[in-house]
Amino acid sequence: MFVFHRPVRFADVDAARIVFFARYLEYCHDALEALFAPLPGGYSAMINDRDVGVPSVRIEVDYRAPLRYGDTARIETAVEKVGNTSVVFVHTLRRDADGTECARVRQVVVTAKLSTLTPLAVPDDIRALLAAGG
Amino acid sequence: MFVFHRPVRFADVDAARIVFFARYLEYCHDALEALFAPLPGGYSAMINDRDVGVPSVRIEVDYRAPLRYGDTARIETAVEKVGNTSVVFVHTLRRDADGTECARVRQVVVTAKLSTLTPLAVPDDIRALLAAGG
Amino acid sequence: MFVFHRPVRFADVDAARIVFFARYLEYCHDALEALFAPLPGGYSAMINDRDVGVPSVRIEVDYRAPLRYGDTARIETAVEKVGNTSVVFVHTLRRDADGTECARVRQVVVTAKLSTLTPLAVPDDIRALLAAGG
Amino acid sequence: MFVFHRPVRFADVDAARIVFFARYLEYCHDALEALFAPLPGGYSAMINDRDVGVPSVRIEVDYRAPLRYGDTARIETAVEKVGNTSVVFVHTLRRDADGTECARVRQVVVTAKLSTLTPLAVPDDIRALLAAGG
Repeated sequence: MFVFHRPVRFADVDAARIVFFARYLEYCHDALEALFAPLPGGYSAMINDRDVGVPSVRIEVDYRAPLRYGDTARIETAVEKVGNTSVVFVHTLRRDADGTECARVRQVVVTAKLSTLTPLAVPDDIRALLAAGG
Repeated sequence: MFVFHRPVRFADVDAARIVFFARYLEYCHDALEALFAPLPGGYSAMINDRDVGVPSVRIEVDYRAPLRYGDTARIETAVEKVGNTSVVFVHTLRRDADGTECARVRQVVVTAKLSTLTPLAVPDDIRALLAAGG
Repeated sequence: MFVFHRPVRFADVDAARIVFFARYLEYCHDALEALFAPLPGGYSAMINDRDVGVPSVRIEVDYRAPLRYGDTARIETAVEKVGNTSVVFVHTLRRDADGTECARVRQVVVTAKLSTLTPLAVPDDIRALLAAGG
Repeated sequence: MFVFHRPVRFADVDAARIVFFARYLEYCHDALEALFAPLPGGYSAMINDRDVGVPSVRIEVDYRAPLRYGDTARIETAVEKVGNTSVVFVHTLRRDADGTECARVRQVVVTAKLSTLTPLAVPDDIRALLAAGG
């Protein structure tokens, strides 16, 4: 399991004073960027230099408790499955202070050649990275 | 069915040059704000004056085709179900120019007293509004 | 003068319950995208097809009154000056309901070849467009 | 001088493939949140519990070089002046890898009672914090 901490920032909330529901996906993406950081050049080099991306094809979110300004989110990311050209992540977002589960996000991505958005076999180094943490 | 048009804006894309996956949920929220506009004072009065909100409890997104800068998204929102304290919306996001389906979003919200986030029976005027368009 | 209306959206506010100070620049950019819309293909074709952009080199903002959820911003954009490779815009952001001035933004942009970010003489059609509204 | 590092994130760029000009202000705000972190409960407690905020009244930005995905921004924040009810910050945003200055941001804030947005003498603990780093 990979763990990433993300403080709720001042502008992350909405007019209902809780973290805007779309931002949960931003938090998950930040967690993925951190997860891919051990690759040479990290996630950005994967995108910029190798033309490899991991676009989402399916997302499921169960919202269970709100996050507020002052909270830090702890995102625990598990790798549920690595297929030929796809990966399934399950992110559990917790309020770090007390461990409350705030959301569960199941994210299916495909590995793809970015310039054409065509599927690509999961590259070996990415497969190894995911195996190490999963 | 409710229809809302949302041009992709300059900063909506990510480093892969397509609309960032989390923004699809922003687009759906913009569509909901438009959908609720016929209420007196609109969505904002519902939030600010009546202390009523519609927090999401479950989201499912199927991403089917990218949106890019220059596209306009057409969001078609259907009301799948109105329960006692919940509503299910299904948003189809299309590229307006050619009708391509870019994503399907199923969104389950609860009607809630915002200050306490406790469930609330769907208010009559909201029920009527949803019935009119569903 | 060009006029653009932009409702404050649900997630535009911050934990202090007013529109986040950085978003005022987003609103100005939305106004610019609308201002350039009369060009063939609009602002996005300028970026995508002509490789022409208008990056900011200097911004000054005077914040005078808050915008809140429920307000609509009216952005009045004047063209202060068109130089050889630069344009100066002055945006006045007002609360639409009562005309209160919420901010004044002076924005200096250069016309540039985007792929290299090198300055470019203001193209004739853009010059004509700005003259028409200024 | 206070120093804060902020990696450019995947969705921080715009359709011109450089960090969107409005986000520079977000980066500065992130730097301020870090700067205030030594206060008990940090910036969020100042907002949530003490009803004290530091709304901006004037911002000047000089953009000098782009930031791109893959860069990390280093924000160096100096306190230019602490007045009775105002503080002037100067943020220098650099590309961390080579120290290139990407922008200079001069930010004038007032200390204010948030619920009413009325000015407030700079609280002693904040004055001490700023003196320590300035």
